[in-house]
Parts: sequence; structure tokens; C-alpha cells
Amino acid sequence: MGESPATLAEDGRSVLVLDQTLLPDQVRLHRLTTLEDAAEAIRTMRVRGAPLIGATAAYGIALAALADASDRGLEHAASTLGATRPTAVNLHWALERMLRTLHPLPPTDRVDHAWHEARAIAREDGIANARIGQFGLSLLQALEGHRPLQIMTHCNAGRLATVAHGTALAPIYAAHAAGLESHVWVSETRPRNQGLLTAWELGQAGIGHTLITDNAAGLLLMRGDVDAVIVGADRIAANGDVANKVGTYLKALAASAHGVPFYVAAPLSTVDFFCPSGSAIPVEERNAAELGAGNTPAANPAFDITPAHLVTAIITERGVVTPAELERLR
Amino acid sequence: MGESPATLAEDGRSVLVLDQTLLPDQVRLHRLTTLEDAAEAIRTMRVRGAPLIGATAAYGIALAALADASDRGLEHAASTLGATRPTAVNLHWALERMLRTLHPLPPTDRVDHAWHEARAIAREDGIANARIGQFGLSLLQALEGHRPLQIMTHCNAGRLATVAHGTALAPIYAAHAAGLESHVWVSETRPRNQGLLTAWELGQAGIGHTLITDNAAGLLLMRGDVDAVIVGADRIAANGDVANKVGTYLKALAASAHGVPFYVAAPLSTVDFFCPSGSAIPVEERNAAELGAGNTPAANPAFDITPAHLVTAIITERGVVTPAELERLR
Repeated sequence: MGESPATLAEDGRSVLVLDQTLLPDQVRLHRLTTLEDAAEAIRTMRVRGAPLIGATAAYGIALAALADASDRGLEHAASTLGATRPTAVNLHWALERMLRTLHPLPPTDRVDHAWHEARAIAREDGIANARIGQFGLSLLQALEGHRPLQIMTHCNAGRLATVAHGTALAPIYAAHAAGLESHVWVSETRPRNQGLLTAWELGQAGIGHTLITDNAAGLLLMRGDVDAVIVGADRIAANGDVANKVGTYLKALAASAHGVPFYVAAPLSTVDFFCPSGSAIPVEERNAAELGAGNTPAANPAFDITPAHLVTAIITERGVVTPAELERLR
Repeated sequence: MGESPATLAEDGRSVLVLDQTLLPDQVRLHRLTTLEDAAEAIRTMRVRGAPLIGATAAYGIALAALADASDRGLEHAASTLGATRPTAVNLHWALERMLRTLHPLPPTDRVDHAWHEARAIAREDGIANARIGQFGLSLLQALEGHRPLQIMTHCNAGRLATVAHGTALAPIYAAHAAGLESHVWVSETRPRNQGLLTAWELGQAGIGHTLITDNAAGLLLMRGDVDAVIVGADRIAANGDVANKVGTYLKALAASAHGVPFYVAAPLSTVDFFCPSGSAIPVEERNAAELGAGNTPAANPAFDITPAHLVTAIITERGVVTPAELERLR
């Protein structure tokens, strides 16, 4: 992955993000210097992926603090950033953590502490994902089936969706490093085609992969061409229901129909213990223009809910748990 | 539908087909004058949809007979046309019917009989679909749920996929004519986006519809936004397993998970009584370039198999049957 820049870097005055709307055609960094820059980058999906959105939002507070570190300034910043995308809970988790840290401090101390705390969130994301990779590696090592292992994923829950290592792809990277090879079935993930991001980063890492239409997942699972499905998450309810990129649920149904394990890899910042079940998770409805069908009436829900009973296990930085065991990690 | 030309017309010397690779942007007719023209039109999907492929193949034999009505000529024609697309059985059914009709005749009589038989196949397709529409209408009238009824379909099994009326859309057109309104959820149907064809023809008929990504089907079914799913078929095995456009199986799984009826609408020419089950149906693998992802490794199976146990009923021109009752119509 040597050629590819980090998804996020900063110098205490501004933040450089890899502009994911231009990938894989162009590798270009985009500079954020204001609160609005950060909000725009999240809203337009220049940065995307629940963990990376969380870290970027934390830096958005730090950028906002440079201009106005008053209570009102920070609350305005949090509400601006919080309104960008409704489903990924890491965003709200990061904003709350930032405000909780900064609120007790005098405004003059807040700028330094804001950057410090945002750095901690970013660093911890990398550490959590490295652990997810190791816990997931044990699952992959225990899988019977093809060699190379045949893994199916959806959307991009790789290093591009995080500060480092990825979530769903972290076990695949860890396995690659340990000499256990995988081949990854990468679904296009209409309408934004984040599958191309996954194919790009797997290609950079030298991991075999094949792009498929979202429609093809059922046939591949029926044919026995998949040993495990691993996806990320945007929010996990307390009962283990999982909100993730729209189309995830269909893969979970097909995996279940064919007895293929369905794993969700996510840091605990993705678990919303205050949300009792999937039906309470807000599902973002994005602009229908993303479908690119001109004047044809269109709807564009960006996420769906996979019920806990279809989830074999959740891979977190504190270990692998079944949905029913999630509460234990609270 | 007044503005739109028929999918297929002929003058006994050539055949005019609506070029579906240009729709919905351009409405242009494409003339077939030779066997090769007919084979090319089917192979490249200028004509598509199992019933329309069958009728076009029949006319392909008639075109071939103009040049060479010998046994060898007709057998060459049938094998050329038969090799264009492997999954839709209507193609093979029409070719066999043409050869069976022409074989006993002296070559001098074959041209006229070839055009006559192709016309019979085309005419019968229209009649069968009109009946499918009426039988399907009874199912729709019996549905409880929203008004307008919320119907989900996949791909295009409308009038564009047939000589007239469509298969999956025939009940919706019949309902519209009877004053029972539907709203149709139209999935994009990657990679060829035949959902745009469905949206276009529904728009021409004044029937409400909304385009969605293929990924969104699970969420809509989970939310209770769908009263019934109706799809066409490319081949139905004797046990009721259904081959249809890739992605159909995922919709069937989701419909079943939420207790929503899943109907397959197809003329009996789509039933392959010699094929015991879905696993014996050849699934066409099309060029990965259809995914439009440049050099990214890609796979592109064009169909999938929906097991009979997920099919609520099959709507044929001889009535509505469960998969288990199919054998009765043999």
C-alpha cells in the first residue's frame, strides 16, 4: 500500500483527506481548514466510512475551535457536523466525546485539547482496527473451505473507510500478512460504487479480488463460491441489528440460506447501546440524482438493516461476540 | 403507449426490431435481413427478454430460409441462433418448433411456411401474455394492502421483453385498464440497467413507478412498502425452480422473509419440462466489460436461480399454479 497516501493527515492547523469521490481514477488530497470544509467533505462523501467519518468530525471540531472555541461556537460546530449524515453513529459518538472533553475547560485551553483529543480518536481507530484484524484472522484461520479463502464483502469497509487497516478488510489484510491468502468478491455497491474503492485498495495490497454486480451475490453463495461474508457497519443497535450500506441485508439473507457465516467487523464506537433495535436507526435517504437516471422518479435509501439473527458474529477490538453477547462489552 | 413502436414487425422479407440498446434515450428501429442480423441482434441484446428472443429467433429461421431452405441451411441457422444465448429456453423452444414444422416439407415450400410459423409464434406470444395479464389481474385484485398496490419487479419483463403486453408487467397493465392502480418499484438491474426500460414503458403507459438500486429491495420489503413481487423468467425447470435475471433470487429471499408473495409470470414456452431442476439450467456468463470497471477483474453472470420453495405461484396463459402443480400443465 506504499503508493497510497493516508486517508487523513493533519498539522494542527488544517487536515488533509484523500478525496474519495475522485478514486480510483485520481489520487488527490483535499485540504480542510474550516468547520464548513469538514462538514462538506463528510456530506459529499469525500470522506466516507463510519470510522473515518468519526475521526474527520473530531477534527472538524478542532478546526472550528481555531475560529471560535466558545461554548456556542463548539455547539454550533457539533450540530453542523452532526447534521451531515444521520446513520453512522461514530459521527455522533466522536462529537459527543469532543464536547465532553472540551466543555469543562476554559476556552483558551480548548484549541490544544481539541487537536489532542481528535488525534487520540484517530490513533485509537487505527489500534482498534488492527485488533479487529487479529481477532478476525483467527476466524479466517478456523474456516474450512477453499484455499485461497473466498470472502465476500460489500461497499468499502477497508482502510479507505477508516484511519488505518479497515474494519471488514482488516482480517483479510492480517491474513495476507500471515500468509493465509484470500480472494475477495467485491460487489459494485450501487449507486456510489464503493466496490471500486475496495477493488483499488485490495489491488494495491496485492490481494486477489473480483468485482461483481450487487445482483450476483445470491448466485455465488448458492454455488458454494463463498466461504464467509464480512462487512462493516454504520451503526449496531443494542440487540445486534446492524445498519450498513444498502444491499447488506440481501447478502445476509443469502448467506443464511446457504449456511455461510456472515460477520460484521466494527469498532465499539459503532455500537449504539442507547438504540434498542434496528427499527430505531435512522436510514439516510440520499439524493436520487446519485442513480444517474435523469428525470426518472427514483428513491435512494443509503443503508439497510440486517436483523441480528442473520449475523453470525461481530468482530470488535475487544473480541468476537454474537449479537446476543454484545451487551457484555458495554 | 401510442408513441412507441412495436418491439417487432415484419414484411415477409425483413424484420424491424426496436433497438433496445438505445432505449430509453433513442427510439430507433433496426432492420434484420439475414440470419446473421438476427443472431447479432439477440447476442448484443438489441432484442432481449425471453419471449421476444424466442419470436426473433423464429424470424431468424425465416430470414435464413430466404437464402437457403435446405436441411443443412436450416440446421446451420438453428445452431447459429441457438448459440447466441444459453439461458432463455424460449429461444430453443422456438427453434425446435420451426425445425419440426419445416423439416417434413419440400424446400420449395419452406420459405412461406417459415414466415407463417414465425408469425404464429409471435401472435401466440401476444395472446399468451394477454391471458397472463388477466390471470395476474385476479391475483392483484385479491391482494390486500396499499392502494395503489405496491408492486416490485426486476429487470424488464414488460412489453419490451415480449411481442406484446409483457409477462411480469401484463397484470399491471391489465389492472391499470381495469381501474386498479399500481405503483411499481423498479430495480436498476445492473449491469445492463433494464430497469430503465421498465421505467420508460411504465411512464409511457401512465403507471406510477420509482427507480431504486438493486440493493434497496431488502429494505423496502422489510419496511412493508411492497405488496407483491412479480418477475418474468428465462427458464423454469420442471420442479418449479426459476432462472431469471441475476438479482431475482435476492428479491425472492427478501420477499419470503417478510411474507410478501413472489410471483413469476411466464408463458408455458418458458417451462423446460426436460430440465429437472434449477441446477441443470446453464447460466450465461456475459462479458465483464458490461460492468464498465476498466481493468478491474470482474465476473458477470447474467442470471440466477430462484428455488421453487420461494415462488408463491407461477402465472401462465393457462392459469396460476404453484411450482408443485406445474407438471399438470405439461
